[in-house]
Amino acid sequence: MDDVLSDLSARLRASLLEGLPAEALLTDPQVTASYATDMASFCAAGTPAVVVLPRTVEQVQHVMRTATALRIPVVPQGARTGLSGGANASDGCIVLSLVKMDRILEISTVDRIAVVEPGVVNAVLSRAVAERGLYYPPDPSSWEQCTIGGNIGTASGGLCCVKYGVTAEYVLGLDVVLADGRLLRTGRRTAKGVAGYDLTRLFVGSEGSLGIVVQAVLALKPAPPRQLVLAAEFPSVAAACEAVCAVMEAGLTPSLLELMDRTTVHAVNALARMGLPEATEALLLAAFDTPHAPEDLAAVAELCTAAGATAVVPAEDQAESELLLQARRTAFPALEALRPATMIDDVCVPRSRLGEMLDGTAAIARARNLLIGVCAHAGDGNTHPIVCFDPADEDETRRARESFGEIMALGLSLGGTITGEHGVGVLKKEWLARELGPVGMEMQRAVKQAFDPLGILNPGKLF
Amino acid sequence: MDDVLSDLSARLRASLLEGLPAEALLTDPQVTASYATDMASFCAAGTPAVVVLPRTVEQVQHVMRTATALRIPVVPQGARTGLSGGANASDGCIVLSLVKMDRILEISTVDRIAVVEPGVVNAVLSRAVAERGLYYPPDPSSWEQCTIGGNIGTASGGLCCVKYGVTAEYVLGLDVVLADGRLLRTGRRTAKGVAGYDLTRLFVGSEGSLGIVVQAVLALKPAPPRQLVLAAEFPSVAAACEAVCAVMEAGLTPSLLELMDRTTVHAVNALARMGLPEATEALLLAAFDTPHAPEDLAAVAELCTAAGATAVVPAEDQAESELLLQARRTAFPALEALRPATMIDDVCVPRSRLGEMLDGTAAIARARNLLIGVCAHAGDGNTHPIVCFDPADEDETRRARESFGEIMALGLSLGGTITGEHGVGVLKKEWLARELGPVGMEMQRAVKQAFDPLGILNPGKLF
Repeated sequence: MDDVLSDLSARLRASLLEGLPAEALLTDPQVTASYATDMASFCAAGTPAVVVLPRTVEQVQHVMRTATALRIPVVPQGARTGLSGGANASDGCIVLSLVKMDRILEISTVDRIAVVEPGVVNAVLSRAVAERGLYYPPDPSSWEQCTIGGNIGTASGGLCCVKYGVTAEYVLGLDVVLADGRLLRTGRRTAKGVAGYDLTRLFVGSEGSLGIVVQAVLALKPAPPRQLVLAAEFPSVAAACEAVCAVMEAGLTPSLLELMDRTTVHAVNALARMGLPEATEALLLAAFDTPHAPEDLAAVAELCTAAGATAVVPAEDQAESELLLQARRTAFPALEALRPATMIDDVCVPRSRLGEMLDGTAAIARARNLLIGVCAHAGDGNTHPIVCFDPADEDETRRARESFGEIMALGLSLGGTITGEHGVGVLKKEWLARELGPVGMEMQRAVKQAFDPLGILNPGKLF
Repeated sequence: MDDVLSDLSARLRASLLEGLPAEALLTDPQVTASYATDMASFCAAGTPAVVVLPRTVEQVQHVMRTATALRIPVVPQGARTGLSGGANASDGCIVLSLVKMDRILEISTVDRIAVVEPGVVNAVLSRAVAERGLYYPPDPSSWEQCTIGGNIGTASGGLCCVKYGVTAEYVLGLDVVLADGRLLRTGRRTAKGVAGYDLTRLFVGSEGSLGIVVQAVLALKPAPPRQLVLAAEFPSVAAACEAVCAVMEAGLTPSLLELMDRTTVHAVNALARMGLPEATEALLLAAFDTPHAPEDLAAVAELCTAAGATAVVPAEDQAESELLLQARRTAFPALEALRPATMIDDVCVPRSRLGEMLDGTAAIARARNLLIGVCAHAGDGNTHPIVCFDPADEDETRRARESFGEIMALGLSLGGTITGEHGVGVLKKEWLARELGPVGMEMQRAVKQAFDPLGILNPGKLF
């Protein structure tokens, strides 16, 4: 058996080198092992046979033709900042890292599009378009590291979504290398287009399981004025959620509407000495990025006060606004610093049910005797309960896992989804079936079968 | 053979009546014949065997189970205002009209969603949500007649798209009866969600060829201030297109940016005595729906003047703005009144190529000695050249058909698409293959096969 494997491995390497330069192929087990996982906790990962780092579409096609010929699974990867194990290697797989395909091919101010390769880092693109007076909204927490290809794979969100939506809204067209190496072009460079089924959107969020994105046409917006931020302190999470609903019901369109609970506020202060108000049960941040932002912030302030806010503090200027945003962006690392390990949930509920979701999450934390900090893209109803625990403590670890599932079950019971923006990966694949039901799962599998009949693209993810 | 057919027809009726009330089944050939076509010219249509008008999801499931059992094609229909023949009957088919499923099931101001049945008329929904301070943007020309189900089927656009996008952007989740009668629920009620492949978007624009939409969760926006409109006259279409590009390059976000050529302006005046300026070669309408609309209109006025506008006239008030919008909405019927028949093209190009597209269209009109009026959603690069001709004149009819194809070929050569918002239907199915290429077509067919293995859903459309 070992002989068969090593024979296959030798054939794989030889075949790959027929269409890849030597430096694009990594085989040292110590090196390849470092490509085994993304940033999710508790997700199984295998040992890759090889890692390939192609620089051209033709090289990607060669990799896929080789994989098809030898029936070897392929796991596509970007920056491996994912939080669901979607980029974790499987045993004997080809890890196909797209990070070397990192060129911005075009930015058009008239057409408001960018054409990019998948390995472009989100922040690099964001800055490049900003220089041209344009704006690429999707801003996941990992935006300084994560790649556009990875963002497309998971349909990533961020802080901007309450006004600007998720990555999916910005993908107009794709070049995709299919499982058998053929090149498929989907979508368009135009503002509109309805020629045939929307295969573009099918690839967005497909976690590398339908094809390899090698180029993307992205829609851009004109750069808005910088955000003005307001912070409001609430005596309860429920009161803060009431304010969120009131803001949306009033017809306001904040560019950001974020909630941090007491645990998160304390964690941020502990890590970064931000001076956030520690006596508060929930801190709500609201922002606007329009010329009439001050008027809108005043309206939000009034609604927060009516919902019971104990303090409402508009930032005095850009610098103060930036500090508040920085505090929010510190929430994840701050909670991660509290205990040796964390699990990040990503449940999204209708925003009218946000209060129930967060009260229920707190009840789960109490019942399981766990430290769970919550920050939420409150305007979207998208919550990130972060379960903080010590893997060395078996009982706590068991309770952490159980709470993770209970939180997803709660989200589903409130009409929500198990994942607002992080994807399913390995972490939530049992839960996907619970959300979609048998007919939904059957049609998901039918689509997978249509694009990847041999099942070599990122097997074991999603389903 | 006739006996076999009449036997099948009898079995079909009997089977349908097992799950449908008698009044939901139309069999009188004179009546059913009136359901044979939508509003497209030159599209073949067959004779339906029956028309069914279900009122419940269960009835739709019964129809599809019957169709599957008897292998009878099903053609779903809304208001039949489509412009590509997508709703045209095929011989012996069941026409499945969804117009009786016309309930608005829910409107939520906090969640900013509406839940509707497919037969709800676009304008009825738009008015219902407006009463709650909300806005459903998609506004195809036929919005007073067309249904949400039909809008979803073709991913319809309208005048709003330059700011608000097309129907696809507003469909969060669907209930779909599959070809075999099973009920599939896709998507979500939440603002975000990435659980599994995005099947929702696959159904949007699928022209009834993958399943029957029986319920939709639609995203809503807060109602914006009413639009303020400006009209600018240009000495050439090219100059007007230059202004369009300048407006978009300046980072402005108009809620409407429409162009009418000289032919269209004259036609509108002839039909409706609108008093539009007849000496102009191109009339550009721009609108904004924000609190700072007057400032933005002033910026547009300056850019138009710089591009060579001979007159720039901002509407003095809402009433004048409304008149200008009314003039634009009259363009289609006005051009239709010029000659006995029309063919409406729907080519969308990158807006940076709009001038070339319109100049090329004018050259085709001259070369073919045809009357072609153009109105365009200029901000989107989406042009509607309307070929006006007399079907009684064989030579003119031939030239009209040829010009129709030449216009699509021009659009493709400029990096555009054959359909921005009207769909493929019967009219453009030969062209779909030219746009998508062999790999694209193969994957389109693979998706069709996955959802409709017997090929009974709207056969002969798209492909």
